[in-house]
Amino acid sequence: MKRLPPKDQLTMGIHALHSLLLHAPDRILHVFTKPTETQKRKGALLDLCKEKGIPVSFVSLETLDHMAGSDSHQSFVAHVQGRHFYDVDSFLERIEEESKAIVLMLDQIFDPQNFGSILRTAECLGAAGVVWSKNRGSDLTPVVAKASSGASEWLPLIRISNLAEAVTQFQDDGFKALATTLAPHSQDGFKFSFHQKTLLILGSEGEGIQPLIQKRADSLISLPMQGKIESLNVAQAAAVFLTLYQMQNGK
Amino acid sequence: MKRLPPKDQLTMGIHALHSLLLHAPDRILHVFTKPTETQKRKGALLDLCKEKGIPVSFVSLETLDHMAGSDSHQSFVAHVQGRHFYDVDSFLERIEEESKAIVLMLDQIFDPQNFGSILRTAECLGAAGVVWSKNRGSDLTPVVAKASSGASEWLPLIRISNLAEAVTQFQDDGFKALATTLAPHSQDGFKFSFHQKTLLILGSEGEGIQPLIQKRADSLISLPMQGKIESLNVAQAAAVFLTLYQMQNGK
Repeated sequence: MKRLPPKDQLTMGIHALHSLLLHAPDRILHVFTKPTETQKRKGALLDLCKEKGIPVSFVSLETLDHMAGSDSHQSFVAHVQGRHFYDVDSFLERIEEESKAIVLMLDQIFDPQNFGSILRTAECLGAAGVVWSKNRGSDLTPVVAKASSGASEWLPLIRISNLAEAVTQFQDDGFKALATTLAPHSQDGFKFSFHQKTLLILGSEGEGIQPLIQKRADSLISLPMQGKIESLNVAQAAAVFLTLYQMQNGK
Repeated sequence: MKRLPPKDQLTMGIHALHSLLLHAPDRILHVFTKPTETQKRKGALLDLCKEKGIPVSFVSLETLDHMAGSDSHQSFVAHVQGRHFYDVDSFLERIEEESKAIVLMLDQIFDPQNFGSILRTAECLGAAGVVWSKNRGSDLTPVVAKASSGASEWLPLIRISNLAEAVTQFQDDGFKALATTLAPHSQDGFKFSFHQKTLLILGSEGEGIQPLIQKRADSLISLPMQGKIESLNVAQAAAVFLTLYQMQNGK
């Protein structure tokens, strides 16, 4: 191979590739795998690539590791079309006809598994998009794409530089911004009345949400924990908040 | 060290150990770490061990890897008191005064991250216990314990051999058994009316729930997916179902 595709145009793993082949095969430019993949499940994937007319190249394990920057590719790396990233204005334009929308904003989520997992959950539970800053979080690496199960290729992604400014832009467009954080005056998420247009801000377990962003939020909310553990993992918390929102505003 | 503790009496990782030190220090028999841990966060953990009177031994990295059967211990492995596992009868006795209870049953969850993650979520969202079969799922390894953030040491665990029989035992005690599965006659989890005593059965993504167990369930339920991806990860699904149950039956 002359030149490796850039890492932010790659996805990897059996599940993510399968999901893409089923739902967005036109996004796949090229699939890379090892020779002599005789496992049944992997053979079925190659047949599907053939059926969809997607070129497949056989490369060494070392090349796969090197392309993905990870050894958890399960022998499959796919070059996908350059992802489209929205800025806040173009995203708001995209959803301007919608009377209801929940958008997730991620602050300081550096763990790629959590990031990917949140993208998958957001897609499954009907979030309109996910906003994050490349300066304050993980980049969209192959590990993230794999954990997202395909969501990274079709969920609207709003990648920006200034999160605090974005909060205000959403608010100016009619959104209420909720910072999910355990503070003395946080409201109980289970009893909260969600606005039809909600920007839900999630921070990392260690770092939380930046004070600057918390200050701009319309409300602080948290989930009362019923046991001894202080908090859910952030991807689980995203699932719970999306469920609570959809219970009130679901289609 | 003469003899290593058995793997099912170990937990590992900074977060899990910290959680145990805060909430159940009496469960920790011994902490193993590497010499010369100078990182601030790790030093604070050692201070906490000292404060709680827990013996600490310094061993090599290789010993830690070997003890944990994993290299993701973050330099901390803890020997915990032998866990108490309930059988169905003794668990039902434990909760006989409760008018409301949701219990998770895991069928064929072999991924230790998912298993641990479900334990944590179950603990945070008020499940009364988790049932699984050692023959049809992951054992309670250090990887599971780490991912559970401490929940594996205090959440009631019902480890049994025959899941199908257990379904009937719960039903005889007044529980309704719900199999979470995407079948033509599955009911919408978002609109479902949860019984106060619910046994929620979760299967793995690949394998689902055994037909024998599905057949015994009182109802099949599923979560309508709003995007293209077929299903949530099982740990996320657990979070959503627990939220839906608690919205109706929460304390």
